[in-house]
Amino acid sequence: MLSKAALKYINSLQVKKYRYLHQAFLVEGAKSVQELLLSDYTIEKLFVTEEFLRKSTELKSKSLAYELIDEKDLTRAGTYTTNNAVLAIAKMKAPIFFQPDLSVLSLALDDIRDPGNLGTIIRMADWYGLKHIICSETCADFYNPKVIAATMGSFTRVNVLYVDLPEYLKKLPVDLPLYGASLRGQNIHRLTLQPGGVLIMGNEAHGIRPEVEKYVKQLIKIPRFGQAESLNVANATGIILDNFFRN
Amino acid sequence: MLSKAALKYINSLQVKKYRYLHQAFLVEGAKSVQELLLSDYTIEKLFVTEEFLRKSTELKSKSLAYELIDEKDLTRAGTYTTNNAVLAIAKMKAPIFFQPDLSVLSLALDDIRDPGNLGTIIRMADWYGLKHIICSETCADFYNPKVIAATMGSFTRVNVLYVDLPEYLKKLPVDLPLYGASLRGQNIHRLTLQPGGVLIMGNEAHGIRPEVEKYVKQLIKIPRFGQAESLNVANATGIILDNFFRN
Repeated sequence: MLSKAALKYINSLQVKKYRYLHQAFLVEGAKSVQELLLSDYTIEKLFVTEEFLRKSTELKSKSLAYELIDEKDLTRAGTYTTNNAVLAIAKMKAPIFFQPDLSVLSLALDDIRDPGNLGTIIRMADWYGLKHIICSETCADFYNPKVIAATMGSFTRVNVLYVDLPEYLKKLPVDLPLYGASLRGQNIHRLTLQPGGVLIMGNEAHGIRPEVEKYVKQLIKIPRFGQAESLNVANATGIILDNFFRN
Repeated sequence: MLSKAALKYINSLQVKKYRYLHQAFLVEGAKSVQELLLSDYTIEKLFVTEEFLRKSTELKSKSLAYELIDEKDLTRAGTYTTNNAVLAIAKMKAPIFFQPDLSVLSLALDDIRDPGNLGTIIRMADWYGLKHIICSETCADFYNPKVIAATMGSFTRVNVLYVDLPEYLKKLPVDLPLYGASLRGQNIHRLTLQPGGVLIMGNEAHGIRPEVEKYVKQLIKIPRFGQAESLNVANATGIILDNFFRN
Protein backbone atom coordinates (compact mmCIF):
# COMPACT_ATOMS: atom_id res chain seq x y z
CA MET A 1 0.00 0.00 0.00
CA LEU A 2 1.49 3.30 -1.17
CA SER A 3 1.73 5.97 1.55
CA LYS A 4 0.19 9.38 0.99
CA ALA A 5 3.62 10.99 1.28
CA ALA A 6 5.11 8.69 -1.36
CA LEU A 7 2.19 9.29 -3.72
CA LYS A 8 2.52 13.05 -3.27
CA TYR A 9 6.28 12.93 -3.91
CA ILE A 10 5.89 10.82 -7.06
CA ASN A 11 3.12 13.07 -8.38
CA SER A 12 5.25 16.16 -7.71
CA LEU A 13 8.00 14.79 -9.97
CA GLN A 14 5.64 15.15 -12.93
CA VAL A 15 6.21 18.90 -12.56
CA LYS A 16 9.50 20.42 -13.76
CA LYS A 17 9.87 22.79 -10.79
CA TYR A 18 9.71 19.93 -8.27
CA ARG A 19 11.97 17.69 -10.33
CA TYR A 20 14.71 20.31 -10.16
CA LEU A 21 13.98 21.08 -6.51
CA HIS A 22 14.43 17.41 -5.59
CA GLN A 23 16.99 16.73 -8.35
CA ALA A 24 15.04 13.58 -9.10
CA PHE A 25 12.90 12.16 -11.92
CA LEU A 26 10.58 9.28 -12.78
CA VAL A 27 11.37 6.25 -14.90
CA GLU A 28 8.39 4.03 -15.64
CA GLY A 29 7.78 0.61 -17.13
CA ALA A 30 9.84 -2.58 -17.34
CA LYS A 31 11.93 -1.72 -20.41
CA SER A 32 13.02 1.75 -19.25
CA VAL A 33 13.77 0.65 -15.69
CA GLN A 34 15.81 -2.33 -16.89
CA GLU A 35 17.98 0.12 -18.84
CA LEU A 36 18.15 2.39 -15.79
CA LEU A 37 19.37 -0.52 -13.64
CA LEU A 38 22.18 -1.15 -16.13
CA SER A 39 23.22 2.52 -16.19
CA ASP A 40 25.30 4.71 -13.85
CA TYR A 41 22.25 6.69 -12.66
CA THR A 42 21.71 6.61 -8.90
CA ILE A 43 18.34 5.10 -8.00
CA GLU A 44 16.61 6.67 -5.03
CA LYS A 45 13.68 4.30 -4.76
CA LEU A 46 11.87 1.62 -6.72
CA PHE A 47 8.17 0.76 -6.59
CA VAL A 48 7.76 -2.73 -8.00
CA THR A 49 5.01 -5.26 -8.50
CA GLU A 50 5.66 -8.79 -7.25
CA GLU A 51 5.75 -10.00 -10.83
CA PHE A 52 8.47 -7.53 -11.86
CA LEU A 53 10.48 -8.39 -8.76
CA ARG A 54 10.33 -12.09 -9.62
CA LYS A 55 11.56 -11.47 -13.18
CA SER A 56 14.23 -8.81 -12.70
CA THR A 57 17.65 -10.35 -12.22
CA GLU A 58 19.31 -6.89 -12.23
CA LEU A 59 17.16 -5.75 -9.34
CA LYS A 60 17.96 -8.82 -7.26
CA SER A 61 21.70 -8.54 -7.88
CA LYS A 62 21.83 -4.97 -6.53
CA SER A 63 20.96 -3.89 -3.04
CA LEU A 64 18.46 -1.20 -3.86
CA ALA A 65 15.65 0.28 -1.80
CA TYR A 66 12.36 -1.01 -3.17
CA GLU A 67 8.77 -1.15 -2.06
CA LEU A 68 6.18 -3.64 -3.26
CA ILE A 69 3.16 -2.05 -4.90
CA ASP A 70 0.11 -3.31 -6.73
CA GLU A 71 -0.83 -2.35 -10.29
CA LYS A 72 -3.62 -0.06 -9.16
CA ASP A 73 -1.36 2.08 -6.97
CA LEU A 74 1.36 2.04 -9.63
CA THR A 75 -1.01 3.37 -12.24
CA ARG A 76 -2.37 5.96 -9.80
CA ALA A 77 1.11 7.22 -8.94
CA GLY A 78 2.71 7.38 -12.39
CA THR A 79 1.93 8.91 -15.77
CA TYR A 80 1.25 5.72 -17.75
CA THR A 81 -2.34 4.71 -18.54
CA THR A 82 -1.41 1.28 -17.28
CA ASN A 83 1.78 0.03 -15.68
CA ASN A 84 2.00 -3.48 -14.30
CA ALA A 85 5.71 -3.54 -13.61
CA VAL A 86 7.72 -0.78 -11.99
CA LEU A 87 8.28 2.91 -11.32
CA ALA A 88 11.68 4.23 -10.30
CA ILE A 89 12.79 7.51 -8.80
CA ALA A 90 16.29 8.31 -10.04
CA LYS A 91 18.65 11.16 -9.24
CA MET A 92 19.47 13.66 -11.98
CA LYS A 93 23.04 13.73 -13.27
CA ALA A 94 24.92 16.92 -14.05
CA PRO A 95 25.00 17.29 -17.86
CA ILE A 96 28.46 17.03 -19.37
CA PHE A 97 29.66 20.13 -21.18
CA PHE A 98 31.20 19.16 -24.46
CA GLN A 99 32.71 20.70 -27.54
CA PRO A 100 31.50 19.30 -30.88
CA ASP A 101 34.24 18.41 -33.35
CA LEU A 102 34.82 16.88 -36.77
CA SER A 103 35.34 13.34 -35.48
CA VAL A 104 31.68 12.74 -34.57
CA LEU A 105 28.27 14.13 -35.47
CA SER A 106 26.34 15.93 -32.73
CA LEU A 107 22.79 17.13 -32.81
CA ALA A 108 21.49 20.58 -31.83
CA LEU A 109 17.75 21.11 -31.29
CA ASP A 110 16.23 24.56 -31.57
CA ASP A 111 12.91 24.93 -29.74
CA ILE A 112 11.70 21.30 -29.89
CA ARG A 113 8.90 21.68 -27.36
CA ASP A 114 7.02 18.41 -27.73
CA PRO A 115 8.26 15.86 -25.15
CA GLY A 116 7.36 12.89 -27.37
CA ASN A 117 9.39 14.32 -30.24
CA LEU A 118 12.40 15.05 -28.02
CA GLY A 119 12.31 11.52 -26.57
CA THR A 120 12.01 9.94 -30.01
CA ILE A 121 14.94 12.03 -31.27
CA ILE A 122 17.09 10.88 -28.32
CA ARG A 123 16.23 7.25 -29.13
CA MET A 124 17.16 7.78 -32.77
CA ALA A 125 20.40 9.59 -31.88
CA ASP A 126 21.29 6.53 -29.78
CA TRP A 127 20.50 4.22 -32.74
CA TYR A 128 22.99 6.14 -34.91
CA GLY A 129 25.58 6.25 -32.12
CA LEU A 130 25.40 9.98 -31.31
CA LYS A 131 26.53 10.70 -27.76
CA HIS A 132 25.57 14.35 -27.36
CA ILE A 133 22.52 16.52 -28.01
CA ILE A 134 22.58 20.28 -27.50
CA CYS A 135 19.16 21.77 -26.74
CA SER A 136 18.00 25.36 -26.75
CA GLU A 137 16.55 26.34 -23.38
CA THR A 138 13.04 26.32 -24.89
CA CYS A 139 13.18 22.60 -25.72
CA ALA A 140 11.14 20.14 -23.64
CA ASP A 141 12.78 19.10 -20.36
CA PHE A 142 14.95 15.99 -20.70
CA TYR A 143 13.60 14.67 -17.37
CA ASN A 144 9.92 15.08 -18.33
CA PRO A 145 8.36 11.59 -17.87
CA LYS A 146 7.05 11.70 -21.45
CA VAL A 147 10.56 12.38 -22.79
CA ILE A 148 12.03 9.57 -20.67
CA ALA A 149 9.28 7.18 -21.82
CA ALA A 150 9.73 7.99 -25.52
CA THR A 151 13.50 7.36 -25.36
CA MET A 152 12.79 3.67 -24.56
CA GLY A 153 15.88 3.55 -22.36
CA SER A 154 18.18 5.63 -24.59
CA PHE A 155 18.11 8.45 -22.01
CA THR A 156 20.79 6.44 -20.16
CA ARG A 157 23.25 6.70 -23.07
CA VAL A 158 22.80 10.18 -24.57
CA ASN A 159 24.07 13.35 -22.88
CA VAL A 160 21.63 16.25 -23.30
CA LEU A 161 22.95 19.75 -22.63
CA TYR A 162 20.73 22.86 -22.39
CA VAL A 163 22.37 26.05 -23.62
CA ASP A 164 21.72 29.50 -25.04
CA LEU A 165 21.99 28.06 -28.56
CA PRO A 166 23.08 31.16 -30.53
CA GLU A 167 25.76 31.92 -27.90
CA TYR A 168 26.94 28.31 -27.92
CA LEU A 169 27.19 28.12 -31.71
CA LYS A 170 28.99 31.47 -31.88
CA LYS A 171 31.90 30.02 -29.88
CA LEU A 172 32.44 26.96 -32.10
CA PRO A 173 35.49 26.85 -34.44
CA VAL A 174 34.71 28.68 -37.68
CA ASP A 175 35.71 25.71 -39.84
CA LEU A 176 33.41 23.19 -38.07
CA PRO A 177 30.58 21.98 -40.36
CA LEU A 178 27.20 23.18 -39.08
CA TYR A 179 24.27 21.73 -41.02
CA GLY A 180 20.74 23.04 -40.66
CA ALA A 181 17.53 21.37 -41.85
CA SER A 182 15.44 23.75 -43.94
CA LEU A 183 12.97 23.57 -46.81
CA ARG A 184 15.34 26.03 -48.54
CA GLY A 185 18.30 23.63 -48.20
CA GLN A 186 20.18 21.40 -50.63
CA ASN A 187 18.83 17.94 -51.43
CA ILE A 188 20.52 15.43 -49.06
CA HIS A 189 20.25 12.71 -51.74
CA ARG A 190 22.62 14.75 -53.88
CA LEU A 191 25.20 15.42 -51.16
CA THR A 192 27.86 13.18 -49.63
CA LEU A 193 27.37 13.88 -45.94
CA GLN A 194 30.08 12.90 -43.45
CA PRO A 195 29.08 12.35 -39.81
CA GLY A 196 31.12 15.16 -38.22
CA GLY A 197 30.21 18.56 -36.80
CA VAL A 198 26.70 19.58 -35.81
CA LEU A 199 23.26 18.96 -37.36
CA ILE A 200 20.72 21.57 -36.26
CA MET A 201 17.01 20.75 -36.33
CA GLY A 202 14.38 23.46 -35.78
CA ASN A 203 10.83 23.71 -34.58
CA GLU A 204 8.29 22.00 -36.84
CA ALA A 205 6.09 25.07 -37.31
CA HIS A 206 8.71 27.80 -37.45
CA GLY A 207 11.95 26.09 -38.52
CA ILE A 208 15.34 27.13 -37.17
CA ARG A 209 15.24 30.65 -35.64
CA PRO A 210 17.12 33.30 -37.67
CA GLU A 211 19.52 33.96 -34.76
CA VAL A 212 20.50 30.27 -34.90
CA GLU A 213 20.39 29.89 -38.69
CA LYS A 214 23.00 32.61 -39.15
CA TYR A 215 25.63 30.16 -37.83
CA VAL A 216 24.57 27.36 -40.21
CA LYS A 217 27.17 26.69 -42.92
CA GLN A 218 25.03 24.41 -45.05
CA LEU A 219 21.24 24.22 -45.25
CA ILE A 220 20.00 20.75 -46.19
CA LYS A 221 16.59 19.29 -46.97
CA ILE A 222 14.86 15.96 -47.50
CA PRO A 223 13.55 15.87 -51.08
CA ARG A 224 9.80 15.63 -51.40
CA PHE A 225 8.10 13.33 -53.92
CA GLY A 226 4.45 13.88 -52.92
CA GLN A 227 2.27 16.59 -51.47
CA ALA A 228 2.63 16.66 -47.67
CA GLU A 229 3.77 20.15 -46.69
CA SER A 230 6.22 19.03 -44.06
CA LEU A 231 7.44 16.11 -41.98
CA ASN A 232 7.27 15.60 -38.23
CA VAL A 233 10.59 16.84 -36.78
CA ALA A 234 11.47 13.49 -35.19
CA ASN A 235 10.89 11.73 -38.51
CA ALA A 236 12.90 14.33 -40.39
CA THR A 237 15.77 13.96 -37.89
CA GLY A 238 15.82 10.19 -38.41
CA ILE A 239 15.87 10.45 -42.19
CA ILE A 240 18.66 13.05 -42.18
CA LEU A 241 20.76 11.07 -39.66
CA ASP A 242 20.40 8.00 -41.87
CA ASN A 243 21.73 10.01 -44.81
CA PHE A 244 24.80 11.06 -42.76
CA PHE A 245 25.64 7.43 -42.03
CA ARG A 246 25.19 6.02 -45.52
CA ASN A 247 28.71 6.55 -46.77
CA MET B 1 -23.74 28.32 -28.10
CA LEU B 2 -23.39 24.61 -28.88
CA SER B 3 -26.59 22.61 -28.43
CA LYS B 4 -26.59 19.53 -26.20
CA ALA B 5 -27.49 17.36 -29.20
CA ALA B 6 -24.59 18.69 -31.27
CA LEU B 7 -22.16 18.20 -28.37
CA LYS B 8 -23.38 14.64 -27.87
CA TYR B 9 -23.05 13.87 -31.59
CA ILE B 10 -19.51 15.28 -31.80
CA ASN B 11 -18.45 13.39 -28.67
CA SER B 12 -19.90 10.16 -30.06
CA LEU B 13 -17.65 10.44 -33.15
CA GLN B 14 -14.64 9.93 -30.89
CA VAL B 15 -15.79 6.31 -30.62
CA LYS B 16 -15.22 3.95 -33.55
CA LYS B 17 -18.61 2.25 -33.30
CA TYR B 18 -20.49 5.54 -33.64
CA ARG B 19 -18.23 6.80 -36.41
CA TYR B 20 -19.16 3.79 -38.53
CA LEU B 21 -22.82 3.99 -37.50
CA HIS B 22 -23.01 7.61 -38.68
CA GLN B 23 -20.40 7.14 -41.44
CA ALA B 24 -18.87 10.39 -40.23
CA PHE B 25 -15.64 11.55 -38.57
CA LEU B 26 -14.02 14.60 -36.95
CA VAL B 27 -11.41 16.88 -38.46
CA GLU B 28 -9.99 19.43 -36.04
CA GLY B 29 -7.79 22.51 -36.25
CA ALA B 30 -7.12 25.09 -38.96
CA LYS B 31 -4.49 23.19 -40.94
CA SER B 32 -6.40 19.90 -41.20
CA VAL B 33 -9.71 21.57 -42.03
CA GLN B 34 -8.11 23.76 -44.70
CA GLU B 35 -6.91 20.57 -46.39
CA LEU B 36 -10.35 19.01 -45.94
CA LEU B 37 -11.96 22.01 -47.66
CA LEU B 38 -9.65 21.52 -50.65
CA SER B 39 -10.41 17.78 -50.87
CA ASP B 40 -13.30 15.79 -52.32
CA TYR B 41 -14.61 14.76 -48.89
CA THR B 42 -18.22 15.76 -48.22
CA ILE B 43 -18.50 18.07 -45.23
CA GLU B 44 -21.58 17.55 -43.08
CA LYS B 45 -21.11 20.46 -40.72
CA LEU B 46 -18.51 22.97 -39.60
CA PHE B 47 -18.15 24.55 -36.18
CA VAL B 48 -16.03 27.66 -36.58
CA THR B 49 -14.79 30.53 -34.46
CA GLU B 50 -15.35 34.04 -35.78
CA GLU B 51 -11.62 34.41 -36.27
CA PHE B 52 -11.34 31.28 -38.44
CA LEU B 53 -14.37 32.36 -40.47
CA ARG B 54 -12.78 35.75 -41.15
CA LYS B 55 -9.53 34.15 -42.36
CA SER B 56 -10.76 31.17 -44.37
CA THR B 57 -11.22 32.06 -48.03
CA GLU B 58 -12.03 28.42 -48.90
CA LEU B 59 -14.91 28.37 -46.45
CA LYS B 60 -16.37 31.60 -47.80
CA SER B 61 -16.16 30.44 -51.42
CA LYS B 62 -18.21 27.30 -50.72
CA SER B 63 -21.75 27.20 -49.49
CA LEU B 64 -21.29 24.93 -46.52
CA ALA B 65 -23.34 24.54 -43.37
CA TYR B 66 -21.49 26.14 -40.51
CA GLU B 67 -22.22 27.24 -36.97
CA LEU B 68 -20.33 29.88 -35.03
CA ILE B 69 -18.80 28.59 -31.81
CA ASP B 70 -16.48 30.02 -29.16
CA GLU B 71 -13.13 28.52 -28.19
CA LYS B 72 -14.46 27.13 -24.93
CA ASP B 73 -17.22 25.10 -26.59
CA LEU B 74 -14.85 24.02 -29.36
CA THR B 75 -12.36 22.66 -26.88
CA ARG B 76 -15.15 20.97 -24.89
CA ALA B 77 -16.55 19.26 -27.98
CA GLY B 78 -13.36 18.06 -29.64
CA THR B 79 -10.30 16.03 -28.71
CA TYR B 80 -7.66 18.79 -28.79
CA THR B 81 -6.37 20.29 -25.55
CA THR B 82 -6.98 23.66 -27.15
CA ASN B 83 -8.57 24.56 -30.47
CA ASN B 84 -9.23 28.16 -31.37
CA ALA B 85 -10.20 27.64 -34.97
CA VAL B 86 -12.51 24.95 -36.27
CA LEU B 87 -13.96 21.45 -36.01
CA ALA B 88 -15.52 19.74 -39.01
CA ILE B 89 -17.74 16.70 -39.33
CA ALA B 90 -16.98 14.97 -42.61
CA LYS B 91 -18.55 11.94 -44.27
CA MET B 92 -16.44 8.80 -44.67
CA LYS B 93 -15.50 7.74 -48.19
CA ALA B 94 -15.55 4.15 -49.37
CA PRO B 95 -11.93 2.95 -49.54
CA ILE B 96 -10.67 2.18 -53.03
CA PHE B 97 -9.63 -1.42 -53.61
CA PHE B 98 -6.36 -1.51 -55.44
CA GLN B 99 -3.80 -3.94 -56.71
CA PRO B 100 -0.16 -3.08 -55.97
CA ASP B 101 2.20 -3.30 -58.94
CA LEU B 102 5.78 -2.69 -59.97
CA SER B 103 5.20 0.86 -61.17
CA VAL B 104 4.74 2.36 -57.70
CA LEU B 105 5.64 1.53 -54.12
CA SER B 106 2.76 0.80 -51.74
CA LEU B 107 2.90 0.36 -48.01
CA ALA B 108 1.36 -2.47 -45.96
CA LEU B 109 1.04 -2.12 -42.18
CA ASP B 110 0.74 -5.17 -39.96
CA ASP B 111 -0.83 -4.48 -36.57
CA ILE B 112 0.15 -0.80 -36.17
CA ARG B 113 -2.17 -0.05 -33.26
CA ASP B 114 -0.98 3.37 -32.13
CA PRO B 115 -3.08 6.11 -33.79
CA GLY B 116 -0.24 8.66 -33.64
CA ASN B 117 2.10 6.27 -35.43
CA LEU B 118 -0.47 5.45 -38.13
CA GLY B 119 -1.17 9.15 -38.73
CA THR B 120 2.53 9.98 -38.93
CA ILE B 121 3.10 7.12 -41.38
CA ILE B 122 0.26 8.43 -43.61
CA ARG B 123 1.86 11.90 -43.58
CA MET B 124 5.21 10.42 -44.52
CA ALA B 125 3.71 8.23 -47.25
CA ASP B 126 2.20 11.42 -48.69
CA TRP B 127 5.63 13.15 -48.54
CA TYR B 128 7.15 10.35 -50.64
CA GLY B 129 4.18 10.33 -53.04
CA LEU B 130 2.66 6.98 -52.03
CA LYS B 131 -1.05 6.82 -52.83
CA HIS B 132 -2.09 3.61 -51.11
CA ILE B 133 -1.64 2.02 -47.69
CA ILE B 134 -2.91 -1.48 -46.91
CA CYS B 135 -3.66 -2.05 -43.22
CA SER B 136 -4.27 -5.26 -41.33
CA GLU B 137 -7.63 -5.19 -39.57
CA THR B 138 -5.86 -4.78 -36.21
CA CYS B 139 -4.30 -1.44 -37.18
CA ALA B 140 -5.67 1.77 -35.62
CA ASP B 141 -8.80 3.13 -37.31
CA PHE B 142 -8.01 5.61 -40.10
CA TYR B 143 -10.89 7.85 -38.93
CA ASN B 144 -9.72 7.98 -35.29
CA PRO B 145 -9.34 11.73 -34.50
CA LYS B 146 -5.74 11.13 -33.35
CA VAL B 147 -4.89 9.50 -36.68
CA ILE B 148 -6.51 12.34 -38.64
CA ALA B 149 -4.68 14.93 -36.51
CA ALA B 150 -1.27 13.26 -36.92
CA THR B 151 -1.61 13.15 -40.73
CA MET B 152 -1.60 16.99 -40.79
CA GLY B 153 -3.98 16.95 -43.75
CA SER B 154 -2.42 14.04 -45.63
CA PHE B 155 -5.49 11.89 -44.86
CA THR B 156 -7.13 13.68 -47.82
CA ARG B 157 -4.56 12.32 -50.29
CA VAL B 158 -3.75 8.77 -49.19
CA ASN B 159 -6.14 5.83 -49.66
CA VAL B 160 -6.12 3.46 -46.69
CA LEU B 161 -7.58 0.00 -47.18
CA TYR B 162 -8.25 -2.50 -44.35
CA VAL B 163 -7.84 -6.14 -45.31
CA ASP B 164 -7.08 -9.60 -44.00
CA LEU B 165 -3.38 -9.03 -44.71
CA PRO B 166 -2.17 -12.64 -45.20
CA GLU B 167 -5.12 -13.33 -47.55
CA TYR B 168 -4.47 -10.12 -49.47
CA LEU B 169 -0.76 -10.81 -49.91
CA LYS B 170 -1.42 -14.41 -50.97
CA LYS B 171 -3.31 -13.19 -54.02
CA LEU B 172 -0.58 -10.86 -55.31
CA PRO B 173 1.47 -11.85 -58.39
CA VAL B 174 4.33 -14.15 -57.37
CA ASP B 175 6.95 -11.98 -59.07
CA LEU B 176 5.91 -8.73 -57.29
CA PRO B 177 8.64 -7.50 -54.89
CA LEU B 178 7.43 -7.67 -51.29
CA TYR B 179 9.86 -6.11 -48.81
CA GLY B 180 9.54 -6.58 -45.07
CA ALA B 181 11.32 -4.59 -42.34
CA SER B 182 13.05 -6.89 -39.87
CA LEU B 183 16.12 -6.83 -37.62
CA ARG B 184 17.10 -10.04 -39.48
CA GLY B 185 16.99 -8.26 -42.84
CA GLN B 186 19.66 -7.04 -45.26
CA ASN B 187 21.24 -3.64 -44.72
CA ILE B 188 19.31 -1.08 -46.81
CA HIS B 189 22.48 0.99 -47.23
CA ARG B 190 23.98 -1.87 -49.22
CA LEU B 191 20.95 -2.44 -51.47
CA THR B 192 19.69 -0.50 -54.47
CA LEU B 193 15.99 -0.29 -53.72
CA GLN B 194 13.52 0.62 -56.45
CA PRO B 195 10.16 2.14 -55.46
CA GLY B 196 7.88 -0.61 -56.78
CA GLY B 197 5.88 -3.38 -55.10
CA VAL B 198 5.00 -3.43 -51.43
CA LEU B 199 6.92 -2.47 -48.28
CA ILE B 200 5.55 -4.23 -45.17
CA MET B 201 6.10 -2.70 -41.73
CA GLY B 202 5.23 -4.65 -38.57
CA ASN B 203 4.32 -3.94 -35.00
CA GLU B 204 7.10 -2.28 -32.97
CA ALA B 205 7.12 -4.86 -30.19
CA HIS B 206 6.49 -8.04 -32.18
CA GLY B 207 7.60 -7.29 -35.76
CA ILE B 208 5.78 -8.66 -38.78
CA ARG B 209 3.58 -11.67 -37.88
CA PRO B 210 4.88 -15.02 -39.22
CA GLU B 211 1.71 -15.52 -41.30
CA VAL B 212 2.50 -12.22 -43.05
CA GLU B 213 6.28 -12.63 -43.18
CA LYS B 214 5.96 -15.85 -45.16
CA TYR B 215 4.94 -13.75 -48.20
CA VAL B 216 7.92 -11.38 -47.87
CA LYS B 217 10.47 -11.85 -50.67
CA GLN B 218 13.20 -9.68 -49.14
CA LEU B 219 13.75 -8.79 -45.49
CA ILE B 220 15.46 -5.44 -45.05
CA LYS B 221 16.80 -3.52 -42.07
CA ILE B 222 18.15 -0.11 -41.11
CA PRO B 223 21.76 -0.51 -39.99
CA ARG B 224 22.46 0.41 -36.39
CA PHE B 225 25.52 2.39 -35.32
CA GLY B 226 24.74 2.83 -31.61
CA GLN B 227 22.98 0.97 -28.84
CA ALA B 228 19.23 1.65 -29.02
CA GLU B 229 17.48 -1.70 -29.35
CA SER B 230 14.92 -0.56 -31.89
CA LEU B 231 13.36 2.43 -33.61
CA ASN B 232 9.83 3.74 -33.41
CA VAL B 233 7.87 2.21 -36.33
CA ALA B 234 6.92 5.58 -37.84
CA ASN B 235 10.56 6.67 -37.77
CA ALA B 236 11.70 3.38 -39.26
CA THR B 237 9.10 3.69 -42.04
CA GLY B 238 10.35 7.18 -42.92
CA ILE B 239 13.99 6.10 -43.07
CA ILE B 240 13.21 3.06 -45.23
CA LEU B 241 10.98 5.06 -47.60
CA ASP B 242 13.79 7.59 -48.00
CA ASN B 243 16.13 4.78 -48.99
CA PHE B 244 13.68 3.61 -51.68
CA PHE B 245 13.61 7.07 -53.24
CA ARG B 246 17.35 7.77 -53.25
CA ASN B 247 18.16 6.27 -56.63
